[in-house]
Amino acid sequence: MRTETDALGTKEIPQSAYYGIHSLRAKENFSVAAETIDSELIHGLALIKKAAAIVNHEDGSLSKEKAAAITRACDEILEGKLNQEFIAPAIQGSAGTSMNMNANEVIANRAIELLGGTKGDYTLVHPNDDINRCQSTNDVFPSASKLALLRLSKRLALEIDQFLDSLIQKADELQDVVKLGRTQLQDALPTTVGNTFQAFASAIARNLNELKSSRDALKTLNLGGTAIGTTVNASEYYVGRIVPEVSKQFGQPLRQADNLIDATQHVDAFVQLSHAYKLLAVTLSKMASDLRLLSSGPQFGFNELFLPKKQAGSSIMPGKVNPVIPELVNQVAFQVIGFDTTNTLAAEAGQLELNAFEPIIVRNLISASKLLQKTLRTFRINCINGIQANRAQCAKEANQCAILATALTPYIGYSKTCKLVKQSLEMDIPIQTLAAQLPDVPESVIKLLDPKTMIPFYKTQELKAN
Amino acid sequence: MRTETDALGTKEIPQSAYYGIHSLRAKENFSVAAETIDSELIHGLALIKKAAAIVNHEDGSLSKEKAAAITRACDEILEGKLNQEFIAPAIQGSAGTSMNMNANEVIANRAIELLGGTKGDYTLVHPNDDINRCQSTNDVFPSASKLALLRLSKRLALEIDQFLDSLIQKADELQDVVKLGRTQLQDALPTTVGNTFQAFASAIARNLNELKSSRDALKTLNLGGTAIGTTVNASEYYVGRIVPEVSKQFGQPLRQADNLIDATQHVDAFVQLSHAYKLLAVTLSKMASDLRLLSSGPQFGFNELFLPKKQAGSSIMPGKVNPVIPELVNQVAFQVIGFDTTNTLAAEAGQLELNAFEPIIVRNLISASKLLQKTLRTFRINCINGIQANRAQCAKEANQCAILATALTPYIGYSKTCKLVKQSLEMDIPIQTLAAQLPDVPESVIKLLDPKTMIPFYKTQELKAN
Amino acid sequence: MRTETDALGTKEIPQSAYYGIHSLRAKENFSVAAETIDSELIHGLALIKKAAAIVNHEDGSLSKEKAAAITRACDEILEGKLNQEFIAPAIQGSAGTSMNMNANEVIANRAIELLGGTKGDYTLVHPNDDINRCQSTNDVFPSASKLALLRLSKRLALEIDQFLDSLIQKADELQDVVKLGRTQLQDALPTTVGNTFQAFASAIARNLNELKSSRDALKTLNLGGTAIGTTVNASEYYVGRIVPEVSKQFGQPLRQADNLIDATQHVDAFVQLSHAYKLLAVTLSKMASDLRLLSSGPQFGFNELFLPKKQAGSSIMPGKVNPVIPELVNQVAFQVIGFDTTNTLAAEAGQLELNAFEPIIVRNLISASKLLQKTLRTFRINCINGIQANRAQCAKEANQCAILATALTPYIGYSKTCKLVKQSLEMDIPIQTLAAQLPDVPESVIKLLDPKTMIPFYKTQELKAN
Amino acid sequence: MRTETDALGTKEIPQSAYYGIHSLRAKENFSVAAETIDSELIHGLALIKKAAAIVNHEDGSLSKEKAAAITRACDEILEGKLNQEFIAPAIQGSAGTSMNMNANEVIANRAIELLGGTKGDYTLVHPNDDINRCQSTNDVFPSASKLALLRLSKRLALEIDQFLDSLIQKADELQDVVKLGRTQLQDALPTTVGNTFQAFASAIARNLNELKSSRDALKTLNLGGTAIGTTVNASEYYVGRIVPEVSKQFGQPLRQADNLIDATQHVDAFVQLSHAYKLLAVTLSKMASDLRLLSSGPQFGFNELFLPKKQAGSSIMPGKVNPVIPELVNQVAFQVIGFDTTNTLAAEAGQLELNAFEPIIVRNLISASKLLQKTLRTFRINCINGIQANRAQCAKEANQCAILATALTPYIGYSKTCKLVKQSLEMDIPIQTLAAQLPDVPESVIKLLDPKTMIPFYKTQELKAN
Repeated sequence: MRTETDALGTKEIPQSAYYGIHSLRAKENFSVAAETIDSELIHGLALIKKAAAIVNHEDGSLSKEKAAAITRACDEILEGKLNQEFIAPAIQGSAGTSMNMNANEVIANRAIELLGGTKGDYTLVHPNDDINRCQSTNDVFPSASKLALLRLSKRLALEIDQFLDSLIQKADELQDVVKLGRTQLQDALPTTVGNTFQAFASAIARNLNELKSSRDALKTLNLGGTAIGTTVNASEYYVGRIVPEVSKQFGQPLRQADNLIDATQHVDAFVQLSHAYKLLAVTLSKMASDLRLLSSGPQFGFNELFLPKKQAGSSIMPGKVNPVIPELVNQVAFQVIGFDTTNTLAAEAGQLELNAFEPIIVRNLISASKLLQKTLRTFRINCINGIQANRAQCAKEANQCAILATALTPYIGYSKTCKLVKQSLEMDIPIQTLAAQLPDVPESVIKLLDPKTMIPFYKTQELKAN
Repeated sequence: MRTETDALGTKEIPQSAYYGIHSLRAKENFSVAAETIDSELIHGLALIKKAAAIVNHEDGSLSKEKAAAITRACDEILEGKLNQEFIAPAIQGSAGTSMNMNANEVIANRAIELLGGTKGDYTLVHPNDDINRCQSTNDVFPSASKLALLRLSKRLALEIDQFLDSLIQKADELQDVVKLGRTQLQDALPTTVGNTFQAFASAIARNLNELKSSRDALKTLNLGGTAIGTTVNASEYYVGRIVPEVSKQFGQPLRQADNLIDATQHVDAFVQLSHAYKLLAVTLSKMASDLRLLSSGPQFGFNELFLPKKQAGSSIMPGKVNPVIPELVNQVAFQVIGFDTTNTLAAEAGQLELNAFEPIIVRNLISASKLLQKTLRTFRINCINGIQANRAQCAKEANQCAILATALTPYIGYSKTCKLVKQSLEMDIPIQTLAAQLPDVPESVIKLLDPKTMIPFYKTQELKAN
Repeated sequence: MRTETDALGTKEIPQSAYYGIHSLRAKENFSVAAETIDSELIHGLALIKKAAAIVNHEDGSLSKEKAAAITRACDEILEGKLNQEFIAPAIQGSAGTSMNMNANEVIANRAIELLGGTKGDYTLVHPNDDINRCQSTNDVFPSASKLALLRLSKRLALEIDQFLDSLIQKADELQDVVKLGRTQLQDALPTTVGNTFQAFASAIARNLNELKSSRDALKTLNLGGTAIGTTVNASEYYVGRIVPEVSKQFGQPLRQADNLIDATQHVDAFVQLSHAYKLLAVTLSKMASDLRLLSSGPQFGFNELFLPKKQAGSSIMPGKVNPVIPELVNQVAFQVIGFDTTNTLAAEAGQLELNAFEPIIVRNLISASKLLQKTLRTFRINCINGIQANRAQCAKEANQCAILATALTPYIGYSKTCKLVKQSLEMDIPIQTLAAQLPDVPESVIKLLDPKTMIPFYKTQELKAN
Repeated sequence: MRTETDALGTKEIPQSAYYGIHSLRAKENFSVAAETIDSELIHGLALIKKAAAIVNHEDGSLSKEKAAAITRACDEILEGKLNQEFIAPAIQGSAGTSMNMNANEVIANRAIELLGGTKGDYTLVHPNDDINRCQSTNDVFPSASKLALLRLSKRLALEIDQFLDSLIQKADELQDVVKLGRTQLQDALPTTVGNTFQAFASAIARNLNELKSSRDALKTLNLGGTAIGTTVNASEYYVGRIVPEVSKQFGQPLRQADNLIDATQHVDAFVQLSHAYKLLAVTLSKMASDLRLLSSGPQFGFNELFLPKKQAGSSIMPGKVNPVIPELVNQVAFQVIGFDTTNTLAAEAGQLELNAFEPIIVRNLISASKLLQKTLRTFRINCINGIQANRAQCAKEANQCAILATALTPYIGYSKTCKLVKQSLEMDIPIQTLAAQLPDVPESVIKLLDPKTMIPFYKTQELKAN
């Protein structure tokens, strides 16, 4: 064990540990859940610390040796080698200070080691003075969170893209299957199974666009602002160079906020992303519910779609198979919507120059990113791709539906058609038969009762172009 | 016009107006919605003001003449005669001060008038010194709100009670209609239409109990606490007598809070009521969704129930009729759930010795009370009471469902039964036929495939006893 | 009274009424709240009906006389002349059918009257066959709602713009007032009052951009899609011409949805707008809370800002003045956030080819538009514009704050500075004095302790350019 | 590896595994998050399976050997020995079937092993026919969840109880520290620090009562109901004995639901618990915010309380210490409130005879139970217990506050007092001095300006008695 000291006193730290006193205090104070800093967030922190070391070295305020050791320590973290040293809990007080300090301590101790020193000997490399040089948690934590979320939301976007492909393929595959449409769960005019998937695809395509547009706000960093956006303790060189360097290391163009004080206290970029996730969740939940409804049966429901069978559905009813994947989708959607409530509360509760509740928002956005990505994957592979139409049922419904009579209204009027529909339903006579008996209605009009003539076929290829 | 003065300056008031300068300022500052103080809240305020006048007179701090004039003014308000003088907006800053002052001003001016004075001559009767004597908005506003909500929630409880009667009656009426049950929208074991309504009734009965239990917290008032619960400026006599007097005027036993400082700053009684409303909303919404699903058709849905037809359903599709009442119920439920979000935010945002956001909570609870009451009424009269079962469809489903084979598992095991169900579904052979062909299965076991033998019939009479 | 008949039976209607049997049934079925169709929604419906009449006339399916009468009736409605005839409740079942039919009936009866007929004689002009020609509630209701929301959100955007001007002006006015900044409510580095307002302005400017971007989705209409997006009963001419004609009447470019089936069942455009409102609400609520905090006092709070005094604050504590306008803002923000919960639930609950719960979403969006607009107005006029800085208090804080020592860390390190701060606080010695006693620290470094040197001044003019 | 077969095909299972094909499919289908079945839920499942084996043996439908093996297997699970075999994800489709089947498979295989068989040889002990005998996921999963939540909420209640003790102790300790009270963040009448904690304690005591009352609904189980509450396949003996036996094993009285169909489809017991947690979260969040506000400073905030210092607060500002524990509390509260949104959505989405979304609700309630328990613990130990009052500041505020003049209003009236307060504030003359100069005001009245005379002292001991 080694002894470390901070302004509040001393703590015993295992000599092998790269983390230090601040990290340990965080663990002791905040361990209300099992989760510690997410690996993507560790990645974002290490990337910023590396860029800062490079810029500070360029600026002459960090020696070549220190800079090299720090850079190498950061690289090791970026490769995932020291994740277990990041012990600060994901949910924590102090607006991310403990996560930032955990990174500062781990990098400092690894750099000390690389320079031949003993862990804990911060005269060689100091967590605050060297690793955190020109930085504050106020700018590092939200910026690292944005890098993490840019990576995660990118992966999610790619997953959505594949999901969209599956929907479009399914729409094309089942384009010709005419079926009954319903409004308010009541028999309405015919559509096709293809149109159903096409409509899903269109909504998902819009959600994807919204997600992409939400990601844009994540590209604005407040690095250089240090405490509350003042730039205090950051050199002019650093303020000008840090975001370009992070950008270079990250491999994507990033921007420095125009107003660093604004950028430090407002979290609307996170709220936007939370919304994009919620919007996607709403579409997915509606889609999942529709699939459950359309596959209800097997004997006495809507029974128009066959979902792939994934599990024996019941521990007691043999042969029962349930729509388990859509049910999973609904639940994940509910969770993401609940996270949005939490994120909204946390955003609203921000005070003055900083929002102290960023950790819970970031935790939930990371969780939502992963949940949605994996859920889309299982939804696509284990459900959408294998859906088949119950062609017999679909054809029966589309051809026998009395509401087809709607096509007659321009010729015989709403009121007469209404009586015809009533008669068809009450006497169980096909609407086509009744219509054929109408006086003065030409055959060309009767032919309109063919459901196929009523349905527009929507093209899919444009969706992906956006 | 008359001129009134307060600490901030002067305002011209129409001479005919009973309200005064504070009310007018409120109108000017807060008119972001059309709503002004709800009539039930006016009632609650007037009742408290009347009780205060009586107690203050008993205590010797209000002359007989003044007390008589104030009491009479309050009685007129309690009869609804001066509602139009209550111009303070329902959503307002200042934790209800404007609503309290609106009452103080209207009562003062009416009392002045009754005493032969001129409106605005507050030397005769003073809004603060006389009407608000021994009171603060801190205790008057939440207490008046509780009186209002006690009345409204009582009416709601009575409406729920009638709704429960309708459900029970419908359950009794349709007890013998055997139908298919479903879990996860897949065909499951049989049940009866009666059981469906019975289950609804049981849940509603629990919701009613929860509502009643939530009402209890409303009966604790912080009257006598004046500002922040200190009792400053309230005489000992008043502090001891005010709640009993309000209780007497209100006609129901009410309690004074043990800790007036606690009772002034915490709004959990309102959050509890909000929850009871939300709980009811969740049950109603589930019920409405079930009714829409079970009445889906008329040709190709579940088609087990016929809901009363209330409107032509479509401006374009003649003969279409929609489940409009349940759709209304879903929407009101969503609104009440949204109100709960608002109320939670407002409750959480309370600071130190007072929650400044009580007005929005009270506004939403009043609105939810009325919405739920009227919605239950139309749900009962225009939907539940007239529901009929599609007996042919129910019988068909219950008898032909392959999953009835579940009853065989104790005799032939889960795996064999599973194969039997599969065979029945794939080859479209009745499960009863297949079962009869099984070797070594006695007839007594085959008889278990009769759906009627599977279903427990739940009694209803106990529900109302709670 | 006249007797009207529909598929469900007959109803007595006052002879003077322009509404008809469908509207009356809606009133009877759905009156759970006082609100009827909003005037903006009436406007949107009339505008679409007018455009449809024009296009149908061009297409040869509506006679010149009828078209003229219908057009004139619509114009009267657009002028607000028949608002009281729109009796259908705002919250209703049937996905807006009753609002659409209310418009159809009022227009038909007024057109009948203009053509010299008797109200109720639908052989002259028929609500469905003529007024609703080529239309369905499925396309008319969401489209009319979008027109209404385009108008309302435009007004809101203009209001935000003025609000932004006020913030910028206040930022400029108070740019030089140096004050203490705080993170996590603890004394941090200095900033200026101007920066505070500047940061508010930057966030509001982003919210405005998001609102504008959300409005774009409202410009996509599904008119021409009729029932479920099939275009059934709409002529090819109509399908091609209706949106351009609505666009012309509306005075703004509008688009027809590429996929009408998608556009009929998904309500993400509304969810987007709800989000933009929520995002604004979050910013406003944070701002209002900050203003309440910064003006806390007058003797023993933060006491840095003076808000305009708008009301006597207490019915019992003389001289107390409360931050009533910001309190109003918080509450409206909570309400808008709660509406977003409701809207999310309603959007998620959509089923198959239609979302039956559009009415509650539209009702809440209309309400939120108006609430936010009026709240911004009173916030601007009655609060922001009149805010003054407590310059003495601000100067005192900024100059005496021990945390100014942060500026020394690059020179003496984090640990030494830490001790200095502790010493200053515990012994109540100005940090400047202690710093001056440090050995080996040049005067140029000590000068960094001047708060003015620490603060970046952000420019405002670019904000409005976006 | 061994091969297992179900109705959908075959799967390779590691020979060492106790779980089987159903569990593996669940893992493959549902792995969208890292979490698998919670250990408390495993405990609940094992306890029910044990009780069922006992009852089935008593009933003669399970041999002595099998029953003994199953019972022993369950006991091992109850001791936590096989937790790693529970691989079914916590968030899953199928309403908990996979969790139930995971238990069935692990117990079957362990029992097989104990009987000398080979894992996977289900002819010896069958997951469905033996372990799940007389059961369905429909009754087992919600019942096991209730057992888990009863245990967790009990621990939470005990934690709340200790938290309450700390609040009361702190209230007693600081009872005599007179300080300024505030309404709407503006200086109001005096109170004491003790009263502040007393008020917190009172609210927490009510929350605890509500939690206890919510727990009651968890004690009603639907065991015996099997599928949808029909009792199909459960013997009469089993239906009557299972709940008493579970009760015995669990060590607490439990009840069987009166209406098993109702109890199977409605989840209001879970919604109630979710509410009790939310209610507690709201109180805790308000308390945490108050503590952050009252400890704001150290130089220029409210500065009335000293919170224990737990971490260096800033990576850049030396000497800064933040209220990190209350910040943690706020965030956990936001999370619990967000969970309630999710739970509400999931409850509302239930359909017909079952709510398929129970897994997400149960997952969130388990998570909330643990989060709240651990958060209360760190809040108590690391914050509440160590809070000290800034007695100098409190005394200064209480004595110098102009609003003390309120006590004069009964003697000189509201308007005159108002002027006095204004004068005191504007001219910075102590209110006591100004009051002493008033003509005709006796000294006894002037003495009322002593803050100590204004404050009621609330007793604490009764709180714990409830």
